[in-house]
Amino acid sequence: MHVVIIGAVALGPKAACRLKRLAPDARVTMIDQGARVSYGGCGIPYYVSGDISDVKELQSTSFHMVRDPKFFHGAKGVEVLTRKRADRIDRQSRIVHATDLESGDAVQFSYDKLVLAMGSRPRKLDLPGINLNGVFAVSNLEEAEGIRARVEAGKVSKAVVVGAGFIGLEIAEALTDMWGVQTTVVEIADQVLPGFVSADLARMAQKHMQEHDVAFRLSANVLGFAGDGRVERVLLEGEELEADLVIMSAGVVPNSELAAQAGLDVSSKGAIIVNSRMQTSDPDIYAGGNCVQVTNLVTGQPGYYPLGSLANRQGRVIGTNLAGGEAEFSGAVGSFAVKLFEISVAGTGLSPDAAKRSGFDAIHSHVVQADRAHFFPENELMHLEMVVERTGRVLGAQGLCAKGDGLVGRIGAVAAVLGDHPHVSVISNLEYPYSPPFSSAMDIVNAAANAAENILEGRTSPLSIAEFSALWDNPQRDFQVLDCRGQANAQPFLEKYPDVWMNIPQDELRERLGEVPRDKNLILVCNAGGRSYESQVTLEEAGVSGSRNLQGGVAAIRRSGMDI
Amino acid sequence: MHVVIIGAVALGPKAACRLKRLAPDARVTMIDQGARVSYGGCGIPYYVSGDISDVKELQSTSFHMVRDPKFFHGAKGVEVLTRKRADRIDRQSRIVHATDLESGDAVQFSYDKLVLAMGSRPRKLDLPGINLNGVFAVSNLEEAEGIRARVEAGKVSKAVVVGAGFIGLEIAEALTDMWGVQTTVVEIADQVLPGFVSADLARMAQKHMQEHDVAFRLSANVLGFAGDGRVERVLLEGEELEADLVIMSAGVVPNSELAAQAGLDVSSKGAIIVNSRMQTSDPDIYAGGNCVQVTNLVTGQPGYYPLGSLANRQGRVIGTNLAGGEAEFSGAVGSFAVKLFEISVAGTGLSPDAAKRSGFDAIHSHVVQADRAHFFPENELMHLEMVVERTGRVLGAQGLCAKGDGLVGRIGAVAAVLGDHPHVSVISNLEYPYSPPFSSAMDIVNAAANAAENILEGRTSPLSIAEFSALWDNPQRDFQVLDCRGQANAQPFLEKYPDVWMNIPQDELRERLGEVPRDKNLILVCNAGGRSYESQVTLEEAGVSGSRNLQGGVAAIRRSGMDI
Repeated sequence: MHVVIIGAVALGPKAACRLKRLAPDARVTMIDQGARVSYGGCGIPYYVSGDISDVKELQSTSFHMVRDPKFFHGAKGVEVLTRKRADRIDRQSRIVHATDLESGDAVQFSYDKLVLAMGSRPRKLDLPGINLNGVFAVSNLEEAEGIRARVEAGKVSKAVVVGAGFIGLEIAEALTDMWGVQTTVVEIADQVLPGFVSADLARMAQKHMQEHDVAFRLSANVLGFAGDGRVERVLLEGEELEADLVIMSAGVVPNSELAAQAGLDVSSKGAIIVNSRMQTSDPDIYAGGNCVQVTNLVTGQPGYYPLGSLANRQGRVIGTNLAGGEAEFSGAVGSFAVKLFEISVAGTGLSPDAAKRSGFDAIHSHVVQADRAHFFPENELMHLEMVVERTGRVLGAQGLCAKGDGLVGRIGAVAAVLGDHPHVSVISNLEYPYSPPFSSAMDIVNAAANAAENILEGRTSPLSIAEFSALWDNPQRDFQVLDCRGQANAQPFLEKYPDVWMNIPQDELRERLGEVPRDKNLILVCNAGGRSYESQVTLEEAGVSGSRNLQGGVAAIRRSGMDI
Repeated sequence: MHVVIIGAVALGPKAACRLKRLAPDARVTMIDQGARVSYGGCGIPYYVSGDISDVKELQSTSFHMVRDPKFFHGAKGVEVLTRKRADRIDRQSRIVHATDLESGDAVQFSYDKLVLAMGSRPRKLDLPGINLNGVFAVSNLEEAEGIRARVEAGKVSKAVVVGAGFIGLEIAEALTDMWGVQTTVVEIADQVLPGFVSADLARMAQKHMQEHDVAFRLSANVLGFAGDGRVERVLLEGEELEADLVIMSAGVVPNSELAAQAGLDVSSKGAIIVNSRMQTSDPDIYAGGNCVQVTNLVTGQPGYYPLGSLANRQGRVIGTNLAGGEAEFSGAVGSFAVKLFEISVAGTGLSPDAAKRSGFDAIHSHVVQADRAHFFPENELMHLEMVVERTGRVLGAQGLCAKGDGLVGRIGAVAAVLGDHPHVSVISNLEYPYSPPFSSAMDIVNAAANAAENILEGRTSPLSIAEFSALWDNPQRDFQVLDCRGQANAQPFLEKYPDVWMNIPQDELRERLGEVPRDKNLILVCNAGGRSYESQVTLEEAGVSGSRNLQGGVAAIRRSGMDI
């Protein structure tokens, strides 16, 4: 059996090696148009930053062997041919027609089974000046080397990053943190990480990056780029940004043209359609990684997840099936994580907005709690939001915390069950390992589920930072803040905002109910949202209804950068 | 409705507060024989160590209010009565007969619903000298203060800890690390953390603690304690250990006598039996926390999990049900975590031994991999074992890593699905959030499942460190080690053990098959187990069968402290 694999970055090598382990006598040929193969593309921002000194490290195994054609031949029994561009698939004759990019010669590869692993490419916006020198994408090692060489040579003092997704933010950090480049991120949406986290978490992430000298232009349209041969300015509506470096990170598009031309099923969005065995509409042709769509296990709809992690898992499934096995990849819930300077942001499943867009009637909790026992030294506040449908079904979770692995652990635990459409009570009782140095007896992942349940059951009426901010910025200020903390904590706010801020500590509220105004829109506030919730219960019991509980409390206000 | 709660440490307060939030007009009286209530008992080792300076921190909320009776009255509307010992429950008349430990007076509490939250007490071994001054347990704040006062006053130079469970090891660390006390842990089993981790992981944990000057006596029976009023010596078989402080941490027993005397169902092991709504055999009496048994969701058999985390979750379930709700606690998978100096050990479900004892025919993988992308700076090696039944069902996972939260996150993710009896392929595709600073594209949690699957399907024949160690220590040395690493790595071993050690790098094996001895018991070794697995596949294909693959490779050998 001869298996040909087109594309040798992530999924291709995984499928090839798995196949060879299961069926050592299979003949496997993997071709790629690039000169270098099997690299960790997700590590590019850390190469640009200099955290990773040599680009070879992205191509190396954990035991420091470079994964080049020689390595694949000797260690894996896989033949790798670089600089070969696949041009056409002849399914009738089972031949891949290709071009040798060195010699220009036509070459052909006949196959018994074919694997399409062409990945994706950066979305190229059709803008004036897009081809100017100095406009890069973060798509491969050559681009990465180009960016790094330029900053390393001290040729970059101002950079503009277009797109505030993961890669855009990572690159902005890399440029600012290690090279002191004055960097501005331009995003067409009105928040960073659009579609991935709520407006509140986005605001917190953005504020943190601003504190590390990254500038932002949100809701901003890039009209083009200007410069004399080299890029010098980025043109926005009503503004020009100076830049000697531009990084385009406005998403990626699947490389599916080859599949479409061969008559394989491709979605309207350009992703190759595969079944759970990762077969295309031609059962002898498999596909996976960034060029395919898979089922979104939360919505049941097609989803597109260009992630190296999923490519690896799908590659293993393809390798098993090529060897005659019966492996399935049922879909993805869409987990992600990103480090931004001193914080981590991570999530899984649907954000509040994504849930709404998918037609779910959902609420979300926002809990602030120490990332380990609050009495354990060196704990950090974690923010965790749980998105839950009115039926009680959990749709997603997203959070933000200090850097470190604690947040990713909680998100990983939710991700593990999310595809099973868990009821919120499943997360309430999720058994995250407990010990004071690592977690809380009632851990934040449980607390976020409990808080969501309390909202669903009408026991608390939440207010988000975005909602609070809108009320606060309205000159009318048609509300009264009831601060439920101790007097010492409330005092500065009472002095600054005597008209709208009042204080009754939660543990005195039962006795001081008479002081609560009955004719005002009450907003209950405490440090993190716990005491304000308890106060809301007390008020409701006393017949004072209609109050709103500021989720995340003053901790969330502060972290969001609200000027208050 | 009047709800009486006996016990006010963990579950009691949680049930009381939850009930009051759902049914603010309920009357709740919580009694406890202790003087202090609602404290984080799991934090005691960190108070003993001095990490936590004041014992009040264990009793405080995250916003620094001490959870005393006044707090419960004002903030929660719950009446707490301390120093009241419950003596007898009259279920007919619905009265709890108690004694006021201050006055000695009899007091009575009539109830509509009753909650039993008496917790557990340290297992007290009936040994000569057990009551000597200086013999402590880690059961409550008074004992904690006693230990801390003694070490703080410089009165302790040598300590013996009896029992190498979590608390014993945590206390050993506390005494050694912060106070420089020469500490020996005595354990009757032949490994630390017996029942919780494999012999290999136990060996690694022990070695790490030895490097931090903790001494161990395994398979050692304590015969008694000697001293003149104060403890001076611990008597073992054939040995006496000097000690001016002894900590007994040989497990806990549930405080169920009150329940048994009242005719409620209690197991043969002394734990109160409850249904999934946490009701005892009397539906008006609930019980939870360390005095009850719950279902082990992996085995389906009764389990006993004295953990503050489960007490909190069960307390919430009881509070909901007392308020007329319908909450359930279906059982536990048994997650745990423990910090030991610079490392973490964590697990969930069944260890290899526990699986065997429960009658499962199971195997386990042992994978060593970086805790984040191997090309990301500052990664650490993580060890992860996955215990899988021959049917492919995952029974548990345990691991060891540098301190930090990465291991706990992976274990939490497995724990989240473990009660659903997942097939190993579920963990293979588990979507732990991927980004190089936090995890790997093929993360260790997936890799451990993949490795287990490879064992199950007969593609690799594993050898554990314990097995290898036994072979190595046998003077016969009836085996040949085939080192599959590069020559430079293998060289020191070739020089030291020329008779049993040979080297063929994995990527040269296909061409050098002729050099492989056919008449020897081959043990394949590499850095972490990956290349030796690939070599095994190549050997099998070439007709060389019967080799064993040392799981975890040289990394596991080193970490286990094997003298090689």
